[in-house]
Amino acid sequence: MFSKTPPKGMRDFLPADFALRQKVLNVITSTYASFGFSAIETPSVENLALLCSKQGGDNEKLIYKILKRGEKLEKADGGELCDLGLRFDLTIPLSRFYSANVGKLPSVFKSMQCGYVWRADRPQKGRYRQFMQCDIDVIGEPTILAETELITATTEALYKLGFNDTLVKVNDRRLLRAIAIKCGFAEEDHEKVYIALDKLDKIGVNGVLDEINAFAPDKSESFVNLLMQITASSNPLQNCFDALGEYLSDEVKESLSGILDVCKESSKANVVFDVTLVRGMNYYTGSIFEISLSGLDISVAGGGRYDKLIGKISGTNAPACGFSIGFERIVYLLSEKQALSFESNKIAVLIPKDADKETIIDVYKVASNLRKKNTVSVIKKIKNFGHQLEGLKADGFVAIYTFADGKLSKVE
Amino acid sequence: MFSKTPPKGMRDFLPADFALRQKVLNVITSTYASFGFSAIETPSVENLALLCSKQGGDNEKLIYKILKRGEKLEKADGGELCDLGLRFDLTIPLSRFYSANVGKLPSVFKSMQCGYVWRADRPQKGRYRQFMQCDIDVIGEPTILAETELITATTEALYKLGFNDTLVKVNDRRLLRAIAIKCGFAEEDHEKVYIALDKLDKIGVNGVLDEINAFAPDKSESFVNLLMQITASSNPLQNCFDALGEYLSDEVKESLSGILDVCKESSKANVVFDVTLVRGMNYYTGSIFEISLSGLDISVAGGGRYDKLIGKISGTNAPACGFSIGFERIVYLLSEKQALSFESNKIAVLIPKDADKETIIDVYKVASNLRKKNTVSVIKKIKNFGHQLEGLKADGFVAIYTFADGKLSKVE
Repeated sequence: MFSKTPPKGMRDFLPADFALRQKVLNVITSTYASFGFSAIETPSVENLALLCSKQGGDNEKLIYKILKRGEKLEKADGGELCDLGLRFDLTIPLSRFYSANVGKLPSVFKSMQCGYVWRADRPQKGRYRQFMQCDIDVIGEPTILAETELITATTEALYKLGFNDTLVKVNDRRLLRAIAIKCGFAEEDHEKVYIALDKLDKIGVNGVLDEINAFAPDKSESFVNLLMQITASSNPLQNCFDALGEYLSDEVKESLSGILDVCKESSKANVVFDVTLVRGMNYYTGSIFEISLSGLDISVAGGGRYDKLIGKISGTNAPACGFSIGFERIVYLLSEKQALSFESNKIAVLIPKDADKETIIDVYKVASNLRKKNTVSVIKKIKNFGHQLEGLKADGFVAIYTFADGKLSKVE
Repeated sequence: MFSKTPPKGMRDFLPADFALRQKVLNVITSTYASFGFSAIETPSVENLALLCSKQGGDNEKLIYKILKRGEKLEKADGGELCDLGLRFDLTIPLSRFYSANVGKLPSVFKSMQCGYVWRADRPQKGRYRQFMQCDIDVIGEPTILAETELITATTEALYKLGFNDTLVKVNDRRLLRAIAIKCGFAEEDHEKVYIALDKLDKIGVNGVLDEINAFAPDKSESFVNLLMQITASSNPLQNCFDALGEYLSDEVKESLSGILDVCKESSKANVVFDVTLVRGMNYYTGSIFEISLSGLDISVAGGGRYDKLIGKISGTNAPACGFSIGFERIVYLLSEKQALSFESNKIAVLIPKDADKETIIDVYKVASNLRKKNTVSVIKKIKNFGHQLEGLKADGFVAIYTFADGKLSKVE
């Protein structure tokens, strides 16, 4: 006898769970398709060397590694025992896919990928070890047309899922870098500065000050002054531009204000500049963005530009920008709201428990006709008929018939 | 720099590949849903103990095993290094799922599962190490209503995919056993007898005779005589019944003739009894069946009854019967035939390469309107416009517009 439960942190989906997930997936993929994104697929398994390429940040520590097989394992002899691993995101595989297939893809490739990824993370509420990611990426487009399409399409998908009050936060990694440089932080402290800044909402200015004091107390005053200046008035983007002066290139200024101006018009969301938006992945090179539900501190999508990643992985340089929807979180929120309605067209046709083959042949003919417009289940009548009826109604059957002497009789 | 190719035996799917796969999947799942099968999902990863339960036959040798992590790995110390594995089929996970969730499922549970499985097999033409399986199973139904629904639904799905000349072969493991017992084969030789019988089409009676002679020369004469008797006339089923006499129970006779009689009426296929049908998996306990394309020796679906498996795995006894479509083979056959047509509604709107943000805002408004009925891609015009137009047409765009001064002009 074996354990009946799935491996730790992984899940079985019952019919109702699966139906909701499929419905959400259909809304997302059909919206993305209507924007001209093309679905592709890569294997769940990749070479371990690719996964451990130091582009995936802390996620690389969470890789499920696959043991070598047969002769390869015998020859490993205490050395590296594994050669493959389960993917922990869809961006690294996409980068490999793009460079493998670039000759067969359009010069600007708009990719859509939905698939499972695996991370041997500490399981906790709402965090799983196998979970679905839904990504769109634009590869080969260096201008803001990439960012604006990603944001417009993603807010549209969320809107169609019933999230009609979303907040898009936009920032740029190069602006964060300009802040760190202007304040005189050492290069190796930049990431720590960003991490402190990321927490401003949660720990306040004094909290940020404490964090900075821990590694660069001589820079904390200039940093906090700059922060106050940026967040002082109602136009933080202009404040940033003014405060950072020549530390910020025209390119970055135009990119940021372009993305904000276009998306305010094109998307069904509130679009704002947020200097405290950082995004964890170290492959981002320019714009970064995130969508949260207004009023709730819940991020439902995140992304940014990663112009160097594909080149680093494969030697094929290509500008790229991507946006990933938090599928599992969205499914959770919708299951709480019971927001997506399902129209049922399920019909049950009940036959006697001891039906002979002639009866089965007859009922299949009737069912086949009904099936042109409906879902039809042929089911044996059980002794406790009342109980069976209740169960069928609970399972969403909208019409229940019995079949006898070649005729249907409606029960419910 | 890393290898651009996927791991050995695994594949990337380009947009056209993926679109075909998705279309095939949609036909299969919507047909199964119309018969009242409910989609469920289990994780790709299962506990290794479950996968190595000796129910999966030779497939257990092909498991991708996952290395233990963290403390567990340190404590393994030369012992069992792995605790998880990638599933090699969907039947073992379904058995675990059923016993874990039986309280939440209807008394007769009609399950549909489509998902990837992994086998570290020797890669060869048409055989992959990650491939899709599409299974339907009826759990809790001991009578032929299970078999007839599975066969009717599967032939209907194949018919909708354009395979309108299919051959369903039906047999029963208990009938094979009756043959082996009547001929006096030792219990431990039964599987070898079945394997020889399975090859009758390929190696002829003399070939089968050679195989039997290799392990039970004293039984070969009675075996071949029986075989001749069965295949002698046009009614092999009646021949079997006559020849096997009391070795075959009435239950088996009624089951076989019931399945054949019902499915001949209910399915859009040619349905026959085939005494040489064996099916490899050792968990089958009763009826077995397979679908091939008429005239071609290509099996496109296979299944059977496995009444003991769920009990062996979980202690929850339940009769069960399943049918699995060979998804990859079907996709391959359809890609060769280019049989499924795709209606394209893809529109391209070309904007100047140096479009300013006002132009982008305007074109997004126009695109958003068009998108109500079409897939709309906003694309930058490139220098070599003629080349770009050809590329767009090759990519399936049915209308191409340019956008300037707030207006669309049709190019193609």
